[in-house]
Amino acid sequence: MNNRTTDPRHLMTAPLFLAVLLSSPHANGADTLHSWNGGPTRFAVIQFVKDVTTEGGPQYVPPSGRIAVFSHDGTLCPEQPVPVELAFILDRIKALSSRYPRWKTKEPFKSALSRNLTALASFGTRGMLELTAAAHSGMTTEEFESTVMSWLARTRNPRLNRPYDQCGLLPMLELLDFLRSSGFKTYIVLRGDAGFLRPWAEKAYGVPPDQVIGSSVRTRFEVRKGAPILVRRPDFEMMEDGPGRPGAFYRATGRRPIAAFGNSDGDLEMMQWTAAGGTRHLVLLVHHTNGGNEFAYDRKAMFGRLDKALDFGRKNGWTIADMTKDWNRFFTKTVK
Amino acid sequence: MNNRTTDPRHLMTAPLFLAVLLSSPHANGADTLHSWNGGPTRFAVIQFVKDVTTEGGPQYVPPSGRIAVFSHDGTLCPEQPVPVELAFILDRIKALSSRYPRWKTKEPFKSALSRNLTALASFGTRGMLELTAAAHSGMTTEEFESTVMSWLARTRNPRLNRPYDQCGLLPMLELLDFLRSSGFKTYIVLRGDAGFLRPWAEKAYGVPPDQVIGSSVRTRFEVRKGAPILVRRPDFEMMEDGPGRPGAFYRATGRRPIAAFGNSDGDLEMMQWTAAGGTRHLVLLVHHTNGGNEFAYDRKAMFGRLDKALDFGRKNGWTIADMTKDWNRFFTKTVK
Repeated sequence: MNNRTTDPRHLMTAPLFLAVLLSSPHANGADTLHSWNGGPTRFAVIQFVKDVTTEGGPQYVPPSGRIAVFSHDGTLCPEQPVPVELAFILDRIKALSSRYPRWKTKEPFKSALSRNLTALASFGTRGMLELTAAAHSGMTTEEFESTVMSWLARTRNPRLNRPYDQCGLLPMLELLDFLRSSGFKTYIVLRGDAGFLRPWAEKAYGVPPDQVIGSSVRTRFEVRKGAPILVRRPDFEMMEDGPGRPGAFYRATGRRPIAAFGNSDGDLEMMQWTAAGGTRHLVLLVHHTNGGNEFAYDRKAMFGRLDKALDFGRKNGWTIADMTKDWNRFFTKTVK
Repeated sequence: MNNRTTDPRHLMTAPLFLAVLLSSPHANGADTLHSWNGGPTRFAVIQFVKDVTTEGGPQYVPPSGRIAVFSHDGTLCPEQPVPVELAFILDRIKALSSRYPRWKTKEPFKSALSRNLTALASFGTRGMLELTAAAHSGMTTEEFESTVMSWLARTRNPRLNRPYDQCGLLPMLELLDFLRSSGFKTYIVLRGDAGFLRPWAEKAYGVPPDQVIGSSVRTRFEVRKGAPILVRRPDFEMMEDGPGRPGAFYRATGRRPIAAFGNSDGDLEMMQWTAAGGTRHLVLLVHHTNGGNEFAYDRKAMFGRLDKALDFGRKNGWTIADMTKDWNRFFTKTVK
């Protein structure tokens, strides 16, 4: 007997092996959710996936309906001491400040230059828009992508001492993988500029650029030296937190998710809308309870306040991941 | 020897077989492009796909970069005697008119009710926005989808006598399949409301809702009887033709396509932008030259005028599909 042709394992070349993984709903999750402790939270996730992938079962959802949405900051990665995009904006305002001497005395630039976060917060959305516009525009789309990627390559989260694209919370990365391997399409929503996260979302989270939904910048079509380009204008349509978020998701995708993952009051309406879709659903709140391994904050946080949504979630039986109880690892061991 | 465990063919269950098909770039296209006549147009398509899928080749593009964009009306389906969304809007304005007696004397409603297309065209974008808002809003997102689907089920293109979701131009459907089977992600752009096409784009073209990019409607988040819903508001952001289209595609996806398919002057800038991306690319114009099998029009058409883009394409060596020369079949034989 010739093993080379009759042993089925020889068919399992790398792409095929991947295809098998992708097509088989290994719904027990045992082989993927390593960083989750056994217990009701992990069980709720696994049971949900089992229910919606069991063909012929009463709660079956066909693959086209398996839509999962994840908030970015605080859900997929830490948002302390400052969210990653704010870190980028502050660095960029500083780098550009020699060209704009007036910024030293003009708000919100003055507070950005002195990293006075409390003052920045007091300028609200309008202040953030002004800073974002200054940091994110005036160049082609390709130039902006290179600017983001080269900043990312030389910057680390100061407390975790890891590059930002390797700050993904390991249990959430496993969850993304588990859902995708069960036929889900995974999306990320963020309040900031989608164009900031898109160039590195595939590497960091396995999410392609068009599945990243956030604030969007308008561009101007120009022909430069015979070649058409898009120039980023200082004109943003801000992704709204709260009640505006379901509509923004619907505009971008035409769908209502059946699974939503968040960590703050800004995610509440998105999660309520997901829970009301009429099919089996999963809404999961990440509760930052572990100051030793990550950060501990909730009702009084400056970034990612979790107050109303925590009360609503508890009252309505939502799944709440308590980092300390539910997780045994927080980040990948090594940094590449 | 037990065949059940050793014969590799037993591994080829349906999903696996599909996965194998999907992962192998059958780049000669012979098995898919049946409705295309042999000749330079068909060859240009096949050669392009071969070049970008040949690993190690000088023009290889990894799957994540294989982005193809198709205009809708006139490229994937006929846009005569009126584009499908306009047919829907006119029917809906008529159906709603008993509630709004003033429409009989008020433009642009008056011309819509009398189906005076020339007059309608004279009201421009503002007129279309007003009609679209009246026809597409004031209900939940789910209610709008049902309205579209039930209209679709009872309406036919009056000259082709086919349901609109079965009016896809067969050679273009084959092209969509061929590209997808070669690892491309296929998108549709349309000037009208993406929410009108999204519910049936998967069935008609194999394109999922979030890969349909068009005008977008704003929604209002409401809680009705305890359940959150989205209500469509009469507030549209109109997808621009021409120079606005590359930016709209970029905003939605964060990408520049490497293949673009269009049929009118409104597609020119999208195609120019695609051609200037710096990788191997394909830009293909569909030229409606066959009044017997479909419709014949170009420089003087009311819908889908092809004038500037035809000259530019010819001058710059773009691929131009002449329906009469390049196609041997236009529609699927049977209607379901």
